[in-house]
Amino acid sequence: MNKNEFAPTPPMGWNSYDYYDTTVNEQQVKANADYMAAHLKQYGWEYVVIDIEWYSNDAGTKREQYQYIPFGDDEMDTYGRLQPAPNRFPSSIEGKGFAPLADYVHRLGLKFGIHIMRGIPRKAAQNHLPIFQSDFTAEQAADAASICIWNPDMYGIRDNAAGQAYYNSIISMYADWGVDFIKCDDICDSRLYREPLEFSGWHETQMIHRAIVKCGRPIVLSLSPGPAHVDRAWHYAQNANMWRITDDLWDKWDLLKEMFWRCENWQDHVKKGCYPDCDMLPLGHLGKGFGQEWVCGLSHDEQRTMMTLWCMFRSPLMLGCELTKLDEWTKTLITNRPLLSLLKEDRRGRQIARTDAYAIWVNESENGGALCVALFNLKDSATKLSVDFKELEGHITEDEELELWDLWEDFKIETQHQTIEMEVAPHGVKVYLYAGV
Amino acid sequence: MNKNEFAPTPPMGWNSYDYYDTTVNEQQVKANADYMAAHLKQYGWEYVVIDIEWYSNDAGTKREQYQYIPFGDDEMDTYGRLQPAPNRFPSSIEGKGFAPLADYVHRLGLKFGIHIMRGIPRKAAQNHLPIFQSDFTAEQAADAASICIWNPDMYGIRDNAAGQAYYNSIISMYADWGVDFIKCDDICDSRLYREPLEFSGWHETQMIHRAIVKCGRPIVLSLSPGPAHVDRAWHYAQNANMWRITDDLWDKWDLLKEMFWRCENWQDHVKKGCYPDCDMLPLGHLGKGFGQEWVCGLSHDEQRTMMTLWCMFRSPLMLGCELTKLDEWTKTLITNRPLLSLLKEDRRGRQIARTDAYAIWVNESENGGALCVALFNLKDSATKLSVDFKELEGHITEDEELELWDLWEDFKIETQHQTIEMEVAPHGVKVYLYAGV
Amino acid sequence: MNKNEFAPTPPMGWNSYDYYDTTVNEQQVKANADYMAAHLKQYGWEYVVIDIEWYSNDAGTKREQYQYIPFGDDEMDTYGRLQPAPNRFPSSIEGKGFAPLADYVHRLGLKFGIHIMRGIPRKAAQNHLPIFQSDFTAEQAADAASICIWNPDMYGIRDNAAGQAYYNSIISMYADWGVDFIKCDDICDSRLYREPLEFSGWHETQMIHRAIVKCGRPIVLSLSPGPAHVDRAWHYAQNANMWRITDDLWDKWDLLKEMFWRCENWQDHVKKGCYPDCDMLPLGHLGKGFGQEWVCGLSHDEQRTMMTLWCMFRSPLMLGCELTKLDEWTKTLITNRPLLSLLKEDRRGRQIARTDAYAIWVNESENGGALCVALFNLKDSATKLSVDFKELEGHITEDEELELWDLWEDFKIETQHQTIEMEVAPHGVKVYLYAGV
Amino acid sequence: MNKNEFAPTPPMGWNSYDYYDTTVNEQQVKANADYMAAHLKQYGWEYVVIDIEWYSNDAGTKREQYQYIPFGDDEMDTYGRLQPAPNRFPSSIEGKGFAPLADYVHRLGLKFGIHIMRGIPRKAAQNHLPIFQSDFTAEQAADAASICIWNPDMYGIRDNAAGQAYYNSIISMYADWGVDFIKCDDICDSRLYREPLEFSGWHETQMIHRAIVKCGRPIVLSLSPGPAHVDRAWHYAQNANMWRITDDLWDKWDLLKEMFWRCENWQDHVKKGCYPDCDMLPLGHLGKGFGQEWVCGLSHDEQRTMMTLWCMFRSPLMLGCELTKLDEWTKTLITNRPLLSLLKEDRRGRQIARTDAYAIWVNESENGGALCVALFNLKDSATKLSVDFKELEGHITEDEELELWDLWEDFKIETQHQTIEMEVAPHGVKVYLYAGV
Repeated sequence: MNKNEFAPTPPMGWNSYDYYDTTVNEQQVKANADYMAAHLKQYGWEYVVIDIEWYSNDAGTKREQYQYIPFGDDEMDTYGRLQPAPNRFPSSIEGKGFAPLADYVHRLGLKFGIHIMRGIPRKAAQNHLPIFQSDFTAEQAADAASICIWNPDMYGIRDNAAGQAYYNSIISMYADWGVDFIKCDDICDSRLYREPLEFSGWHETQMIHRAIVKCGRPIVLSLSPGPAHVDRAWHYAQNANMWRITDDLWDKWDLLKEMFWRCENWQDHVKKGCYPDCDMLPLGHLGKGFGQEWVCGLSHDEQRTMMTLWCMFRSPLMLGCELTKLDEWTKTLITNRPLLSLLKEDRRGRQIARTDAYAIWVNESENGGALCVALFNLKDSATKLSVDFKELEGHITEDEELELWDLWEDFKIETQHQTIEMEVAPHGVKVYLYAGV
Repeated sequence: MNKNEFAPTPPMGWNSYDYYDTTVNEQQVKANADYMAAHLKQYGWEYVVIDIEWYSNDAGTKREQYQYIPFGDDEMDTYGRLQPAPNRFPSSIEGKGFAPLADYVHRLGLKFGIHIMRGIPRKAAQNHLPIFQSDFTAEQAADAASICIWNPDMYGIRDNAAGQAYYNSIISMYADWGVDFIKCDDICDSRLYREPLEFSGWHETQMIHRAIVKCGRPIVLSLSPGPAHVDRAWHYAQNANMWRITDDLWDKWDLLKEMFWRCENWQDHVKKGCYPDCDMLPLGHLGKGFGQEWVCGLSHDEQRTMMTLWCMFRSPLMLGCELTKLDEWTKTLITNRPLLSLLKEDRRGRQIARTDAYAIWVNESENGGALCVALFNLKDSATKLSVDFKELEGHITEDEELELWDLWEDFKIETQHQTIEMEVAPHGVKVYLYAGV
Repeated sequence: MNKNEFAPTPPMGWNSYDYYDTTVNEQQVKANADYMAAHLKQYGWEYVVIDIEWYSNDAGTKREQYQYIPFGDDEMDTYGRLQPAPNRFPSSIEGKGFAPLADYVHRLGLKFGIHIMRGIPRKAAQNHLPIFQSDFTAEQAADAASICIWNPDMYGIRDNAAGQAYYNSIISMYADWGVDFIKCDDICDSRLYREPLEFSGWHETQMIHRAIVKCGRPIVLSLSPGPAHVDRAWHYAQNANMWRITDDLWDKWDLLKEMFWRCENWQDHVKKGCYPDCDMLPLGHLGKGFGQEWVCGLSHDEQRTMMTLWCMFRSPLMLGCELTKLDEWTKTLITNRPLLSLLKEDRRGRQIARTDAYAIWVNESENGGALCVALFNLKDSATKLSVDFKELEGHITEDEELELWDLWEDFKIETQHQTIEMEVAPHGVKVYLYAGV
Repeated sequence: MNKNEFAPTPPMGWNSYDYYDTTVNEQQVKANADYMAAHLKQYGWEYVVIDIEWYSNDAGTKREQYQYIPFGDDEMDTYGRLQPAPNRFPSSIEGKGFAPLADYVHRLGLKFGIHIMRGIPRKAAQNHLPIFQSDFTAEQAADAASICIWNPDMYGIRDNAAGQAYYNSIISMYADWGVDFIKCDDICDSRLYREPLEFSGWHETQMIHRAIVKCGRPIVLSLSPGPAHVDRAWHYAQNANMWRITDDLWDKWDLLKEMFWRCENWQDHVKKGCYPDCDMLPLGHLGKGFGQEWVCGLSHDEQRTMMTLWCMFRSPLMLGCELTKLDEWTKTLITNRPLLSLLKEDRRGRQIARTDAYAIWVNESENGGALCVALFNLKDSATKLSVDFKELEGHITEDEELELWDLWEDFKIETQHQTIEMEVAPHGVKVYLYAGV
């Protein structure tokens, strides 16, 4: 079982967090899945992911004080395994977990994902609960020195047999439910530990990977939050399918601009089944679960820049917006077939140049497919950017005319010269496909 | 109530940790107190301090696995206040706490101290226990994101009314017991938090100080572990009487040598009621509770160096050894009256010079008392060290003869010149008292 | 010779940098000295200091490109000793150096100071010039690996006999000229070296101190730039009279606000002859030599805050403004006798409290003098601040009435209670003197 | 001109540094080249590289004091371009530079390389020398704030037209001489600058690359010293052919062991024309120029480990030993054809596992070539190590028998199972080639 086969191209889907925070319910998940099946599936979008604290019965009830209620009312079985909150996911009653909802999603031709926190519930450890199908108890698996700085639910898990037994017990339950995708949190970067060696997330990543291999179901493993540590690239790649290279991305230009150096830094690590992850796309309608719904604060140019960079770099694409409220502009952004085709297995992104003012990327095919070139303007004013195709190693022969396809404006341009120079809007992008001679 | 009056000179006493680890019991405490009263009290030694986990019923029972047993059997009242383990401290039964033992110590003319971990028991928070004489419950005081990396007992305390109520509830109980000295742990340096701002120990220090002022008993507050942060010197000084400037000191030359730069760094911060703390003196018999008793591994010269530096600098002096096993050599070390007199209120230590090879300190009186000069040899071979009394600002007039008292060898030397030069043993010290003209 | 006697109180004076940058000339120095003698000397102002590159014949001629011209035209004698540029300091011709100008200043009853860069001119080293009254040549003193990141004139000096000979040769020349004050630059903090151990400034500080002691003239030694390293406080104190605890201060609120934590950090290190230095006061007219003259950008409240903090903390006071253009407001600020009296030898500043919103300081006398209390509002809006005199250790007896003198508004207030509470302007201060019972 | 074509496989050669330090001369270079042509060329070894300070007339004459003599006697033309020292390289007289020696090497069928320090001679800048074929002078190109912490010869070069003109002037001279390989020093990691942005080496790398492109000769560019910064991987790859990922490697196990995590860290960055460089191989006879000749201090097992790791990872291979003294053991080590074939263009190294005790690497072909597996024992005692071929993604089909070729012992083993387990010597390696089904 080769985990790289689980995701031969970067996963594309929807995640509940940006719109619902901790509060999404069954009806809302279904509505988004329905929309995806009807309108987006044909473009490659397929994962429906329920984000954080689906096990919390009181999620969102103390929002002015806490995002995550400490010592709160979490649904748990007698083996310390968290279960969907029945008041939010009624189909989960009688121990059925997410199986009915996963089944619903599968019947739409889509895939089903959930978020988990690394670790074992603190309550399970404090109460010495038995671990399913083992002789261990929860406090043997729990590492009392391993917590998450921003979420109070779990203890980290020790690198021992009790710990592996617990991870096996939950991953096999998720497999039974029909889970296709796990986004595991507090595991890619610890915001807490002064000494990286103290962070149990490193071995927990391996333990979860082992539990997935053991369960026999091809479950995609996504690690969060970033920024991931580039000197651990090999370890992420060995155990997971995607890992966040940034802290939470929101609809702010500063965060988006910063992604250019993150992508620069990680470009050599994008490989089949191994995807540095630029985080969810904060497009469209956002934030209702955080208390106040809003519409993506990025300008249209910035939104195109974001979509283009993600595709050139070949990041996973996860929509953060409420799909049932999708407007035409946003829909156009996420259904640009030639742009999305840059994610294909034979392709590879590469930064050609970057300064504080601009960035230039190419996305090439290993099999002779078309060449894509993107000119990003990182400045606050319009500017002319150029690229000399002769300098793109080996792509273009001398003296030839180029026919280029502008992927956002959808028209062809011809140039007599090997160098194109284009006016690019502030924070905007020009992206061209060159089909070759 | 001015906390600096609680300790006009650096506290001197005995602490159970170095010999007993977590396991000391009532009989052993009494035996050490008896010895101190009989043999050491006359030299100024007065505090008897019970160190970590006196509330643990199973302390030391899983020593091969844990120093501090996670999710263990801790004695606690219904208000989440930890109590002495009755199997180790039988006089504490029926809610009497440490009152009987404190009373015993007081009747010997000594003072009684205990160790605490900052925070509130995790079990109290998980079980929502009420806080004594308040409307709060424990989970309101507990900060689920604040733990100790090396001890699993407590959660840190929030900076809110519930938290202050909890600290008030325990400090007033300790005052009722007759506690004179509190060594609070995991509060002076956090070994965990990447961002110091996340460390709740800073505000917890203030909360404990406030609770002491409120309780009305002059309880000396000692903060541990180090290394304390020198840029927080003012804050320690405002809230505590002593704070550790080093991680745990043991009987190793490397650790002792390192103390020279720690003292250099902290010398300007030694003031009345405010003592940077070089940690307990690991002399004599040590380590039984850690599994294997041993005798101090420092050479005799090194032991003198340690005692001399602590006294020149004016560190608190806490004996780590088992007093009932005290040998003659060690007893001589800790009963050197002229050396101990350097701790007096009118005196002040000051480093004159330090290189990797040697250090020179003076200890002066603000009121015209004798001048003390120490020449430390930090090298592994004997060496000649010298000091020019003319260069000691304003102390000695020109052309005068000096009569110096060698404090360890206890004899007088005379010199015709203003400069003395002495052969000093490897890792050893020469310390002279000059009574003046 | 005890260097602490050279400056029993924090030095007060004027420095040419803030107004003239590298360009000041003899006439301008005299004009400022004349003003000081006539109008400020009576308040304690006494030093007249010529700042950086008085040896540069082409100073200021390429200002759009360089502040300090690399490989420029510097005046130097045949022993590699820099001399005043004759085109700017005509009295210096024929090898007279600054002697005539120092003499002028002395006749006004003032003291004369100069700025130097640590090290030896690069040109002297490259050309192997002889060192005065020695057998050494310059390249033996120069450390080719020791430079200043922001000024190209010098190489640092090796810790060897050639190096000491060079420092002796310049310091004795300065003593011959009549120099009373040396501000040595690039020596208190290196902005360059990754490993502090590589920074030759540490031993150069000692070498300059030795050269001053040897020259026999009481020359005050001031170290720049900051931020000084607090763990090296003892070393600065041993060799210098003042050292900068901040990078260059200019007339910006952010920089001024930051000074509160710098003073907090250094408060225990203010001692006779040893002054952590908050940098020059950027009041009045500034910046002409930088290309464009301007008037201090701090609000009046901020200016009072600055003067008050410097005096409470007991920083040296160096005026950066052009004295001949001094306006009435500024003059009032710098001639407040009771405030300036806080610098006296028996006094000591101490921070009582600090948050992001406010700071409270006291300045006390060791000899029973008046108590001074300052309430600083660090917020952008007016706020009420209070201090409880009962909490100021030992100062005030219970139940007594207080009569307080508002030092900026110059009127008396009485209060029935031990706590005063006052409205304080944004970024402003209230400072009260309490003469006692 | 695509610089990646200059070195389609990792360069292999000899470098004078490890044996000669700064002192190598023409005769010695020729003797080593002769040996290489006669005995090593057939295995792929081809570069002959003269390391540091070939321009120094007094190199090695003050070895007890300096490795690199400051303000020393360096050979330079009137345009500030360093020339071979004629007392060491007599063929260079009359402005011929290294052309005669390069010609000699070329006639042996080998390639010729030299070492340079980034920058322009300090003496050229101080004396305002003209830059060849330009209107600029040296002090316009020199950055007075940019030096090397460990070598005193040069100033760094500004990012301006004068600077590019200087680099063009030297690179075109090297091209005229027939240089095939430049090892540029003080450019890959600065050991000096606190703020990486201050390090002029970053833009100097680009300037040298531009000068190479402009000169028209395919000169391989090697950057030193390391450790290179992994977040600058893209920039090294864009401008250079190889860059050091370690500080100087010598014949110490600790340094060799550390290389395992360096290779782990850089494995994704090994690409055609882009080689993270593990540094020269300190085998055989070493150190004569440093004052005392010695023989490689690594055990035979450690030497095999070194050769194996370098080849599995595909590092450049540069011999540090004196070739004319090569013994049989060392010669066998460096002429193992199947091992050296791992450097071929279609191959790629990948770490499978690493702990403190062991490491496992595979080296695979993209074109269906043989699979190579190496088991490294990092412990101080012999141990059994195993690898499961089934777990090597997609390489081996189930149930098949494996025939493996032990590359160091040169014999075939067969195994019935998919897992091999082998005893490996302390610090040793077992490396197997599997030719496939």
